Amino acid sequence: MGLGRLGDKILDTRAAAAGPAAGLGIVETYLARLHEDLSGLGSGEVATYIPELGRADPELFGICIATTDGQLYTIGDADHEVTIQSVSKPFMYAAALETHGRDRVLDQVGVEPTGETFNAIVLDEDTNRPFNPMVNAGAIATAELMCGPDPASAAEEMRRYFSRFAGRELSIDEAVFRSEHETGHRNRAITWLMLNSGMIERDPDEVLDLYFRQCSVLVSARDLAVMAATLAAHGTNPMTGDQVAAPDTVRDVLSVMSSAGMYDYAGQWAFDVGLPAKSGVSGLVAAVVPGQLGIAVYAPRLDPVGNSVRGVEACRRFADRFGLHVFGERSDPGQVIRRAYTAAQVQSRHVRDPREVDVLRQEGGRFAVLELQGMLSFGAVERVLRRMREMPDAVETVALDCRRVAMVDAGGLELLRQIMTVGRGPRLLLAEVAHRPALQPLADLAAEPGAEGLVELVGDVDGALEAFEDAVIAEAGAQADAGRFTLAEQDIFARLDADEIAAMETVAAVLSYDPEQVIVQTGDEAQAFFVVAQGTVSICVELGEGRRRRVASIGPGQVIGEMALLDGGPRSATAIADGKVMCYAFTVAAITEMSDRHPRIMEKILGSIVHSLSLRLRRANAELQALE
Amino acid sequence: MGLGRLGDKILDTRAAAAGPAAGLGIVETYLARLHEDLSGLGSGEVATYIPELGRADPELFGICIATTDGQLYTIGDADHEVTIQSVSKPFMYAAALETHGRDRVLDQVGVEPTGETFNAIVLDEDTNRPFNPMVNAGAIATAELMCGPDPASAAEEMRRYFSRFAGRELSIDEAVFRSEHETGHRNRAITWLMLNSGMIERDPDEVLDLYFRQCSVLVSARDLAVMAATLAAHGTNPMTGDQVAAPDTVRDVLSVMSSAGMYDYAGQWAFDVGLPAKSGVSGLVAAVVPGQLGIAVYAPRLDPVGNSVRGVEACRRFADRFGLHVFGERSDPGQVIRRAYTAAQVQSRHVRDPREVDVLRQEGGRFAVLELQGMLSFGAVERVLRRMREMPDAVETVALDCRRVAMVDAGGLELLRQIMTVGRGPRLLLAEVAHRPALQPLADLAAEPGAEGLVELVGDVDGALEAFEDAVIAEAGAQADAGRFTLAEQDIFARLDADEIAAMETVAAVLSYDPEQVIVQTGDEAQAFFVVAQGTVSICVELGEGRRRRVASIGPGQVIGEMALLDGGPRSATAIADGKVMCYAFTVAAITEMSDRHPRIMEKILGSIVHSLSLRLRRANAELQALE
Repeated sequence: MGLGRLGDKILDTRAAAAGPAAGLGIVETYLARLHEDLSGLGSGEVATYIPELGRADPELFGICIATTDGQLYTIGDADHEVTIQSVSKPFMYAAALETHGRDRVLDQVGVEPTGETFNAIVLDEDTNRPFNPMVNAGAIATAELMCGPDPASAAEEMRRYFSRFAGRELSIDEAVFRSEHETGHRNRAITWLMLNSGMIERDPDEVLDLYFRQCSVLVSARDLAVMAATLAAHGTNPMTGDQVAAPDTVRDVLSVMSSAGMYDYAGQWAFDVGLPAKSGVSGLVAAVVPGQLGIAVYAPRLDPVGNSVRGVEACRRFADRFGLHVFGERSDPGQVIRRAYTAAQVQSRHVRDPREVDVLRQEGGRFAVLELQGMLSFGAVERVLRRMREMPDAVETVALDCRRVAMVDAGGLELLRQIMTVGRGPRLLLAEVAHRPALQPLADLAAEPGAEGLVELVGDVDGALEAFEDAVIAEAGAQADAGRFTLAEQDIFARLDADEIAAMETVAAVLSYDPEQVIVQTGDEAQAFFVVAQGTVSICVELGEGRRRRVASIGPGQVIGEMALLDGGPRSATAIADGKVMCYAFTVAAITEMSDRHPRIMEKILGSIVHSLSLRLRRANAELQALE
Repeated sequence: MGLGRLGDKILDTRAAAAGPAAGLGIVETYLARLHEDLSGLGSGEVATYIPELGRADPELFGICIATTDGQLYTIGDADHEVTIQSVSKPFMYAAALETHGRDRVLDQVGVEPTGETFNAIVLDEDTNRPFNPMVNAGAIATAELMCGPDPASAAEEMRRYFSRFAGRELSIDEAVFRSEHETGHRNRAITWLMLNSGMIERDPDEVLDLYFRQCSVLVSARDLAVMAATLAAHGTNPMTGDQVAAPDTVRDVLSVMSSAGMYDYAGQWAFDVGLPAKSGVSGLVAAVVPGQLGIAVYAPRLDPVGNSVRGVEACRRFADRFGLHVFGERSDPGQVIRRAYTAAQVQSRHVRDPREVDVLRQEGGRFAVLELQGMLSFGAVERVLRRMREMPDAVETVALDCRRVAMVDAGGLELLRQIMTVGRGPRLLLAEVAHRPALQPLADLAAEPGAEGLVELVGDVDGALEAFEDAVIAEAGAQADAGRFTLAEQDIFARLDADEIAAMETVAAVLSYDPEQVIVQTGDEAQAFFVVAQGTVSICVELGEGRRRRVASIGPGQVIGEMALLDGGPRSATAIADGKVMCYAFTVAAITEMSDRHPRIMEKILGSIVHSLSLRLRRANAELQALE
């Protein structure tokens, strides 16, 4: 990789990144396209069994995604309120589990999927129980558990409990409630049948009153997405932090949603889409990606089974595109960003002189690094993109350090690819990707035609940082002159007067090194120190068995082996010439000899070294903080 | 927290940790107890429909767990080989999906759960397809897809493919094969029925030949656990690295195992245990915890449905105890350990003098730190325990830094609790747990009666490190004397002769500070430097709005504000007295004035400062490396 060329390219993006980074909108862009594509789906009929439902505009269409850390993405009619209908069932089931415990609830309602339709009048032959709480019989039996001592307050308690899932105060549509109350003859028949078989014991009117009210709670797709995200977050509402249900309750709710949430379509849905979900006849569908997000769609046209046509298709495409199936490869996205820093906080291993460091402090904010880890799933990449959007407008380049990324799945890759669709925002550099089979899809992505200027591969982050630093230092005209050569121009001798410089020149040895040549070897006795006049020197620690790790890069004007001036002892690191290098070398003996004639020389040199070491120590401490 | 007391306690463990850490065996201990508890389960009957199965010893009982990173835990008869029987079905389904693609396979076999028994002669009325590939009809239809052009080589291909899942060469039990071939009349009927309805087209004898051979592959619980772990690892065998199936294939296989793997018991199993699983009439059960592990049990007594009695109960208890339900709280355990280091590599923020540092280099290996992140699930804690077992015997204390731990779930907590059951191993310190509601279960754990000496709470890792350091330094008799007081005893003046010391004493101001008092304020002009004679001083960087972060702790003999000796300028950090502090202060002007009479003073002081700064810089660089 030509670092210089990369540096130029990095600066180029300043012009390219014209719009503010905050306008990136990768997820919104995808959702907008999905919404547009599905708006053409005109099949299906609005439910008419309650007159109020029949009056819905069939073209209404809203989608909302809510993440488990509280980010909302909406498109279309996501704020249009409709009655929740059967989507209430999982939340009422949660209420029953929280109130009565698992055993009591299982006595009343089973957990077996059924091939029958949702309003079938069938009970388990062995136990008399309704098959599961997602069919009407099971939901009514669940409602009976929640009638409590005072039926009047049960509805208010239900409304309050649902509101905690939604994170705002929900209301009940009294007109729809009355309409259901008057026309729900089949549900009345189911309830009387269960009273007859002893499965319920209360007055069916009381039970149905609560059941019809729970179906008449008004929610928008936005509300429902938050309710689903609360399930995805194991029971804690991501907007309010309210622990609405225990993780064990959520586990049970998701289990029955998974096997029985989508009416007759449940088996194929579990196989194809693989997300716990629930639909309702008002045209709502809610699906849960555990640990990651909730998605809700509102579109009132229903298929023959009773599921929203656009709702099912939106969930299916979304889950398929981003690999969200519960048995697909997924991981908790929470920790994907291991560290975040800018070039102003952490610098490359190339040691810069103070003027250069000043430039980096000022300009380093243009280059950000996100160190990633784990699996790049949809949820993980969504967090990365969100973090990028939160960066200041000044950020022109974001390097993703993928050294600790184990894998990228289809969903993560697809979301990254959306960057090219949007076609703006900071340039993305993918580091530590080459020669890693598991990350080959990232390399392929960067090779796609639309990637240039938006997504590019680099070797490692240190190299990319160094290239950026070289570029901005050159831009500012602050680069240390590679050609400066005289002793008087070296920072370490800046405090010496002309006589002292002249004396130093008499004892300086000028040494040249070839690329890869060792200048100082760990363990050797320290008898001299060196000032780099030309070229770059790597300071390495020996790891044993011939392996070394570069801990610093030293350029013109910097000192090597300064400990020799004190008590000697063995060298603590190895210095190796990066390319052609020229150094001044001074034996300690020679400087000591001249101290009679020039008593302040040593003091002045040591002062410069203290200054340099202090700056390096401060930088190391700052880096330690930034890496926290 | 009394640091001194903690330090004593930490050293106490040296005696307590008598056994080598490598003997810890938390998971093995749990498995051994589970095995013992269930060995009493004598209900159920060995299958007899094939004579070879009927001859199995009903008391055989083996369990194996294989993690997705290749760790195996076995107990009992885990190496006893039996024919795989119906547990072959998911793997043959994987073969068909890999060979023919999803659409072709779905044409042949559905994905709907069925309430019928596994050997029912029923097909889907709408499509004529068998309901799913986990019932015999579906498995036979799947086998037909794999007969290939040459029926003779199809069985060998099947054997090889299964072997890749197991990570070793499996063989076929010819006696069982012949027996099934002769007695499998019902399967023969199913096959002829499917030929009749046009679902299969090949000679039923050819198809059944392959099907009976696939049921006759010999596996142990160990083999089967690896096969299940390969599914858990999204298709890559964790022992061999072989990508046996694509992640999409595994997703489909796990979907049908989840809904239909456990015969009639599937619905309740999905709700209760919540793991994709498959059982067979030889007494094998395999279950998959996606992303984490595979578990396999062999115990030949079957319940009336046809599932191994002990196998079902072992999986149920294991999943319940450790919260492994697919819709429970779980996360990818891969990245739980963010950093690992010892007190020899990273030291507390308390700056030590060189003798003390030597002690820490030598003794620091007794104290290890694991910095954790994400969710402490079963899989995550298993990795932590495994890392602890891999530590050298010298490790007496392991501090778990929980600052970035979001949560501990039931499984993680339970596995940690097993430490008390085992009752030996390094002492575990839980840091950054207090006052965090999500980690309250960890605090409760440390308060349990059996926890003392094994699991204890500490505040932060820095404090625990400092306490350990104080303790080992005191043990070695190397502590800097808190009472030393004269200038001559200060390291920074160690190079001065008696005259020079006397001169310094004339200009030294002795200053006393109260706890929390500011000694040096960031931004003030630097005119003096300080030598700490008594007490401890915190060096802090100002974060704005009055917030500070401690970056170093300075004790007797250390210097504050040494940059004043050079070019002055504003202070770069704030120094605050931790408790009562006494310092010597020297104005730069006073030292400059005496340089005529004592020309080498400044040089000597600067030399000491260079020495100290070099050591601190080296330490910071080492810490940066350790934190990588």
